[in-house]
Amino acid sequence: MKTRPLFGKVTIVGIGLLGGSLGLAIKKRRLAREVWGLARREQSRKKALKFKAVDQATLDLAAAVEGADLIVLATPVGGFTQILGALSLVAPRGCLVTDVGSVKGALVAQWEKASHPLAFVGSHPMAGSEKSGVEEARADLFQGTTCITTPTGRTSKDALKKVESLWRALGCRVIRLAPLGHDKKIGLLSHLPHAAAFSLMRAVGRGMSAGDWRLAGNGLRDTTRISGSDPAMWADIFLANRLEMKKDLEAFQNDLRVLLKCLSKNDRRGLLDFLGRSSRLRQALSRWGASKKRVGP
Amino acid sequence: MKTRPLFGKVTIVGIGLLGGSLGLAIKKRRLAREVWGLARREQSRKKALKFKAVDQATLDLAAAVEGADLIVLATPVGGFTQILGALSLVAPRGCLVTDVGSVKGALVAQWEKASHPLAFVGSHPMAGSEKSGVEEARADLFQGTTCITTPTGRTSKDALKKVESLWRALGCRVIRLAPLGHDKKIGLLSHLPHAAAFSLMRAVGRGMSAGDWRLAGNGLRDTTRISGSDPAMWADIFLANRLEMKKDLEAFQNDLRVLLKCLSKNDRRGLLDFLGRSSRLRQALSRWGASKKRVGP
Repeated sequence: MKTRPLFGKVTIVGIGLLGGSLGLAIKKRRLAREVWGLARREQSRKKALKFKAVDQATLDLAAAVEGADLIVLATPVGGFTQILGALSLVAPRGCLVTDVGSVKGALVAQWEKASHPLAFVGSHPMAGSEKSGVEEARADLFQGTTCITTPTGRTSKDALKKVESLWRALGCRVIRLAPLGHDKKIGLLSHLPHAAAFSLMRAVGRGMSAGDWRLAGNGLRDTTRISGSDPAMWADIFLANRLEMKKDLEAFQNDLRVLLKCLSKNDRRGLLDFLGRSSRLRQALSRWGASKKRVGP
Repeated sequence: MKTRPLFGKVTIVGIGLLGGSLGLAIKKRRLAREVWGLARREQSRKKALKFKAVDQATLDLAAAVEGADLIVLATPVGGFTQILGALSLVAPRGCLVTDVGSVKGALVAQWEKASHPLAFVGSHPMAGSEKSGVEEARADLFQGTTCITTPTGRTSKDALKKVESLWRALGCRVIRLAPLGHDKKIGLLSHLPHAAAFSLMRAVGRGMSAGDWRLAGNGLRDTTRISGSDPAMWADIFLANRLEMKKDLEAFQNDLRVLLKCLSKNDRRGLLDFLGRSSRLRQALSRWGASKKRVGP
């Protein structure tokens, strides 16, 4: 039985790891009649085609979005405002817009304030890795992961339904959060761990010469894996969510101070309390993930 | 062709993840005529036998070490001083002693100051995980990992050679470091990442209710994996290496302060510098581990 695809033309803006995986997944499951990709550089355009992440790839915004039913922003979050401004001028009326960005509050507020003619639904698929580029894209990247949508009272119910259908069709479990609630939770669950990993890698690296890395075990490797992520992408995310980040980093520094104090006072009982609580929290986290497939940033 | 085993009787003090794996590995490769385990509680003694980690298990120190050629300390480092004191009274003359502990400076200095009649060689196999207990022990735990030995000018050359032969026979690459040099490097490469992971888990956990863990991706999971480690074991390690730990935690806090400052000043260029250096360091670490089997803490 042939079913009608969810969308006619889908346009993906930015064809990297996430955009490319989205293209591959939509194509594989025939969720759109055609998938277009908008690239910023000729080299990226060629790569997107070489890896068959999209049916058509172009550097021309107007051509990319002409006749599109859905536009997905998959560029670093730092460029969203500019792209959304351009889209509101050229995208067809009635076209849906969503994104895959890691920060939502300011973006959604800005969009709603500007009263764009396009229907926007914020999306954050919790997929990806420290890798980047369309060469790392995989059609099953979203399978078994969580995708957060961030509707507000002004979000079109129809648009929300269609965008969530897409994520579900790609194998995601969809969870709704308010835009600022999203930034608060994801600030702690994703942005703070990245900040910790980046900082830890620097602190460790300062005391090492090249050959010392052979002494590194899996503790260091796992704790710092995400510090191999793209610096420009993460600079943008940190800045876009900097109010939450500042609070979270200060809370983290407080915990480090408590630990230091236990060490200074040779306080074994205090240390046991400190480490015991962490260990119990980690076990709670493990219980949630135990039966899930391991994908997502 | 039958070869003579490296040792007659080997006694493992403490039969948990490391001690148990050592017993399994020595037995499997027939590196000793017999392997004894010394447990502190009847329950541990029974479990060690149930999992066949040792040939004989006892709660009686004198019986455990009688006729031993090699004694391996595999208890948490906090108990080493007491055990070494007891061993010096009952262990047979000429018996070698080594350990699998994560901190070396104070231990080795103390041992040498006391002029024990036994030959001691410090060992630190970089194997293990956040798990613990003999039920997690594996005969191949040491295969492909690094084992650091920490000889000094007073270490017997013969003893060093024999202990290093054991680790090599178990599949380890052996690297020698001075005891304090070991604590400095391992403080950064292992103890600081543990401290960061334990602290991060607390900071994240404070903002979460139980259901929020479903939003967690692999970034958080990997960054905090080792915070599921045994609190008592790590309290002892942190305290035993607390002078290095304090320096390292302060350096880490400095990095976090630099990051916070970039966020406060909305300084994208500063952030790019900060994150770029981390990312390059992480790539250097990845290059060292790329072809190695992933085992070790």
